Amino acid sequence: MTTPQPTREITGHTRVYGILADPIHHVKTPQMLNALMAREGRDGVMVPFQVAPDDLATLVAGLKTMKSLGGFVVTVPHKTAIVDLCDAVSDSARRIGAVNTVRREADGRLIGEMLDGKGFVGGLLAAGIDPKDKSVYLAGAGGAANAIAFAFVEAGISRLTIANRTRAKAEDLAVRLAEAYPKAQVDIGNPDPSGHDIVVNGTSLGLKDGDALPLDTARLSPEQIVAEVIMQPEETALLAAAKAKGCRIHFGKPMLACQLDLMAEFLGMRALPGAGK
Amino acid sequence: MTTPQPTREITGHTRVYGILADPIHHVKTPQMLNALMAREGRDGVMVPFQVAPDDLATLVAGLKTMKSLGGFVVTVPHKTAIVDLCDAVSDSARRIGAVNTVRREADGRLIGEMLDGKGFVGGLLAAGIDPKDKSVYLAGAGGAANAIAFAFVEAGISRLTIANRTRAKAEDLAVRLAEAYPKAQVDIGNPDPSGHDIVVNGTSLGLKDGDALPLDTARLSPEQIVAEVIMQPEETALLAAAKAKGCRIHFGKPMLACQLDLMAEFLGMRALPGAGK
Repeated sequence: MTTPQPTREITGHTRVYGILADPIHHVKTPQMLNALMAREGRDGVMVPFQVAPDDLATLVAGLKTMKSLGGFVVTVPHKTAIVDLCDAVSDSARRIGAVNTVRREADGRLIGEMLDGKGFVGGLLAAGIDPKDKSVYLAGAGGAANAIAFAFVEAGISRLTIANRTRAKAEDLAVRLAEAYPKAQVDIGNPDPSGHDIVVNGTSLGLKDGDALPLDTARLSPEQIVAEVIMQPEETALLAAAKAKGCRIHFGKPMLACQLDLMAEFLGMRALPGAGK
Repeated sequence: MTTPQPTREITGHTRVYGILADPIHHVKTPQMLNALMAREGRDGVMVPFQVAPDDLATLVAGLKTMKSLGGFVVTVPHKTAIVDLCDAVSDSARRIGAVNTVRREADGRLIGEMLDGKGFVGGLLAAGIDPKDKSVYLAGAGGAANAIAFAFVEAGISRLTIANRTRAKAEDLAVRLAEAYPKAQVDIGNPDPSGHDIVVNGTSLGLKDGDALPLDTARLSPEQIVAEVIMQPEETALLAAAKAKGCRIHFGKPMLACQLDLMAEFLGMRALPGAGK
């Protein structure tokens, strides 16, 4: 983690960004994006916008009118409900059914995007792991797994196997992937991850001591790469087992760093080549 | 002016304050209140909320739901329209017909107050000028003059004379003062300020080079105190003439410093004795 740098002085010119959450005390995105903007010399600031689920639509209607607002990050419990409050969302965000970043255009239109999965794949790429043409095993079919599944298919993997304890959820995800990418090869799997180049935990198993493993680690083999979405603990029981099997492991944290970059770019926080001001 | 100090790091615990204006690039209140909060160790930040008059009600409805919001300062062109959007306003703010500071209570209620006039009187007090039992001549009956007139009457002056080019506006202000304070002695005056202890310019005359004087300076006498609402230029033509006549003069700036303190207190930006957190 970089040391947070002091925010620039806030003036009437400063572009405002929010983070929508409830509760909100634990969020770290404002600290990290404010540090990023300070490093990059951007005149913007992110502040906490705490709002209850019942009030989300009212707050968002108000935020549409705020001309000094550049956009907002959306997190628990609002990622699903925000989709229908945006004026436009990316096709994958629509199919994932979740948005975590919303840009406010100058005319007040709110444009939603889901960057969780793109951040995960970007973190792999930054570590030199290109999933293109690779086979991928994904444990889980919840919110994080949905986003990661779409990002993997968009990154051009050769095939995806989804394994989830509740099989119907995996099938539902597979159907939505097939609707969006009819040529993608998507199968429903079981706890055995063998026969895939990249093995990903997209469940929350491993967050807590004593959690079951998200997949059968006895079936891992040394040529596989095993990756986590869980950031804390850094080395989950899955990653420890994978290491013991001789696999290359990939921590959860690079996803976050990559996602912050994607958020900053999507929200217009950094000067893009050729862009004004 | 003090040098602005870096804002504390913004976290999920930080209380958010806004300033509502349109245009907004010129505002200085965020810089000054953020410096005040930094000096006092308060975990809060003020950011610009730019909104067009037509959208004010929609934004305010949204802000009511924002649990991390402590309140907002309101300036041109929203000071009048905000009154009816508050859940409660002070009696004087209601009669002045303007609010410039709104606190958000924990239950979402918006409480409005008008601090322009209180800031002006507070600035006089800070300079050792107590208007209690003094006679006051006030040039103007517009927004600033309305707020100052109510604050003077609330401060216990002996009598108030209001002089305005459009006499009907002065009479309207006098009627509203009489409704609120039936015992107050309020008269309608002319350009001659003689016979008053304190003479105040509450018009915008003096802002621009070549403006007419707001009152007949030939009628000033050395025992009078002459005070300005205009902050820039610091020494207006009125104050220069008053100085030449041997009057004590009072600049417009102390009003601002005092008002910032009043805003900070009203918005709960500083720990009050005995208050928690």
